[in-house]
Amino acid sequence: MRIKAKKILKVRGFKLAGLACGIKSKINTKDLGIIFATDPKTQIAGVFTTNKVVAAPVLLCRKHLKSGCGTGRIIVVNSGNANAATGKQGAIDCLNTARRAASYFGVALNTVFVCSTGKIGAPLPVKKILAGIERAKNEIAEKNVYDFSSAIMTTDAHPKRASTQFILGGKKITITAIAKGAGMIEPNMATMLCYVLTDLKMSSGVLQRLLKECVDDTLNSLTVDGDMSTNDTVLLMASGAAENADVKSGSRDYKIVRDKLTTLLEEIATQIALDGEGATKCLHIRVTGARSGQDARLAAKAIGNSQLVKCAMFGTDPNWGRIIAAVGYSGALVKEALATVKLGPVVVFSKGRPLVKNEKRASVYLKENTLVDVVVDLGLGKHSGRALASDLTYKYVSINADYRT
Amino acid sequence: MRIKAKKILKVRGFKLAGLACGIKSKINTKDLGIIFATDPKTQIAGVFTTNKVVAAPVLLCRKHLKSGCGTGRIIVVNSGNANAATGKQGAIDCLNTARRAASYFGVALNTVFVCSTGKIGAPLPVKKILAGIERAKNEIAEKNVYDFSSAIMTTDAHPKRASTQFILGGKKITITAIAKGAGMIEPNMATMLCYVLTDLKMSSGVLQRLLKECVDDTLNSLTVDGDMSTNDTVLLMASGAAENADVKSGSRDYKIVRDKLTTLLEEIATQIALDGEGATKCLHIRVTGARSGQDARLAAKAIGNSQLVKCAMFGTDPNWGRIIAAVGYSGALVKEALATVKLGPVVVFSKGRPLVKNEKRASVYLKENTLVDVVVDLGLGKHSGRALASDLTYKYVSINADYRT
Repeated sequence: MRIKAKKILKVRGFKLAGLACGIKSKINTKDLGIIFATDPKTQIAGVFTTNKVVAAPVLLCRKHLKSGCGTGRIIVVNSGNANAATGKQGAIDCLNTARRAASYFGVALNTVFVCSTGKIGAPLPVKKILAGIERAKNEIAEKNVYDFSSAIMTTDAHPKRASTQFILGGKKITITAIAKGAGMIEPNMATMLCYVLTDLKMSSGVLQRLLKECVDDTLNSLTVDGDMSTNDTVLLMASGAAENADVKSGSRDYKIVRDKLTTLLEEIATQIALDGEGATKCLHIRVTGARSGQDARLAAKAIGNSQLVKCAMFGTDPNWGRIIAAVGYSGALVKEALATVKLGPVVVFSKGRPLVKNEKRASVYLKENTLVDVVVDLGLGKHSGRALASDLTYKYVSINADYRT
Repeated sequence: MRIKAKKILKVRGFKLAGLACGIKSKINTKDLGIIFATDPKTQIAGVFTTNKVVAAPVLLCRKHLKSGCGTGRIIVVNSGNANAATGKQGAIDCLNTARRAASYFGVALNTVFVCSTGKIGAPLPVKKILAGIERAKNEIAEKNVYDFSSAIMTTDAHPKRASTQFILGGKKITITAIAKGAGMIEPNMATMLCYVLTDLKMSSGVLQRLLKECVDDTLNSLTVDGDMSTNDTVLLMASGAAENADVKSGSRDYKIVRDKLTTLLEEIATQIALDGEGATKCLHIRVTGARSGQDARLAAKAIGNSQLVKCAMFGTDPNWGRIIAAVGYSGALVKEALATVKLGPVVVFSKGRPLVKNEKRASVYLKENTLVDVVVDLGLGKHSGRALASDLTYKYVSINADYRT
């Protein structure tokens, strides 16, 4: 399902490129994206897949994030090939990609970050990428956000991107996020990649904490099918061009930025949930009244991962039984007699008993809305947690069962 | 998909009944099953759902298993209503059911076990059940295994049952298992219930250990959709009519019985996996070479729960990438460069690299087999674990999205 594209803002301090270098079989399809930070003091933060099987580029990014002490100048992304399950040669190809970018753009090797997405188990066509990097150097420009967002797509039906702008201590701050991902349609083809660019000035330590917190609540709480790719990567670069005052971790300014970035990444997560895989709905799941934050997140995630809940939402069936059962096996503490389930504004289960008279109204709510709110109050404490999910549809099965046969 | 029904053996010491008492809306549909153990020394063991939201009958069974010190005389099962999300009245209705059975059959209350399966959130039609128990007393007979197995069905397309017979220390032992369950099609309608009857003589302590071990490897490793019901119950009754010598826990005889019961319950689990929910395949997943037993089970379960793996199997796509990715996020230790994936006899991924030339042969294997072996060797240790799963099909979505709307 397509979400109307929003206006995307350029961000001071970044030049981008998106071009076709021949990795994808279809001719003239963009498959290489470059982000270049013009200011040598640009800071970077990163969050990566927790899968124990990890592709070569993720290992390189983690290493450079550490050794570069938070300075980031270049991101190179290729689509069409994930450079995963490629053994030692994969690591060499990835390093050579970073080396070429470093020498061509005149930056330190450990300020270069590489991402790959696409087929796994096939050797990376590294010569095409190296040639592409050389070409990109002549094409990069602030305005190329659209080209870049197309170049990183794999099975995505639409590019994902969103921007926000706000004032912080009298300075105008811009944040733009560009992402790809639509569930793991081909093996890891639908790696989730997300790049966030901002002109905010922020030290890399604070930036890393900020990114982690915002991703936990948004992209990391998104569950299209519960499967997790070997390549998932989120990188946040801050050029400092806004020249705002220092933002201390936990300060009022920090919270303002965190709220803005969370909303932006939630928008991106919703775009991912609704793209591809035949999704017709994005579920915004919130569990409140939990004994602990972990309980709330466990319960929300179990609801979002339940095939039965996802099918029911597709069928616009206000099936509180499946929701309560999912909470029950999530590991979270739950007392049925205290629990309440709401679909949008409609209570369908209250303190252990179904409200049968409200079911029709709940079904109408599900029919009429693409963004569906599922709220479970456990009545046990003050903690809450969230998850985002898509529904499970015929088309999901069709796409995932048929694509290679 | 239907599995050819096997011959079911009567078990000495047990009389059964299956009758229609009017709980199900369709007239003359059997919905009440009774098992009566004629020998007062009959032992019982039980394994129940680990869901924290638990229906009234499960609470009663757990209580009686404890207070009855392992003696079991009667099992009462109704289908059509799960007596779940029914509050205090549900507990009273369940207790009254047990009381009526105890008084009519002249046994102690805490040797009566009650199970319910069907719609949740609706009051139990307890009067119909009480009247049914009275009628059942006149109808019970050793031969009524078939009636009983029909009476406990909900959305099952076919009854599930299997028998085995073997010699233990010169005595002929019979074990018969009867079950229902086909994934959670309606909320908890597809609770898994399984009753195992044997003429084996065994103390209740050893019986409980035996059941737990065998269920862990079979029914508890079955994942149709990862969702777990509030009513799941497995009960094992041993009449002692075979008059075999005492079976000590861990002895040679114990291992013989364990192997036989495991095979029997694996057969039942396969019947469940292939019934309803549009399943076309049963996946027998084995993870070997793990660092620990827990790692092996985690990895096997993650493969069995992966929507993407299940769709690939439906599409007869030998998609090793999805299998390796599932192992990677399972929490188990895995080193890609040591891992190997086999589909049936065909190696598709060997020590970190895909074997592209074998993919066609693997696809043919998937096309030609209903029972599919998925074997992952992690190459890290000596431990192994298993899971059973069905594939994910159009029909699954159709059944689960549409049934109430």
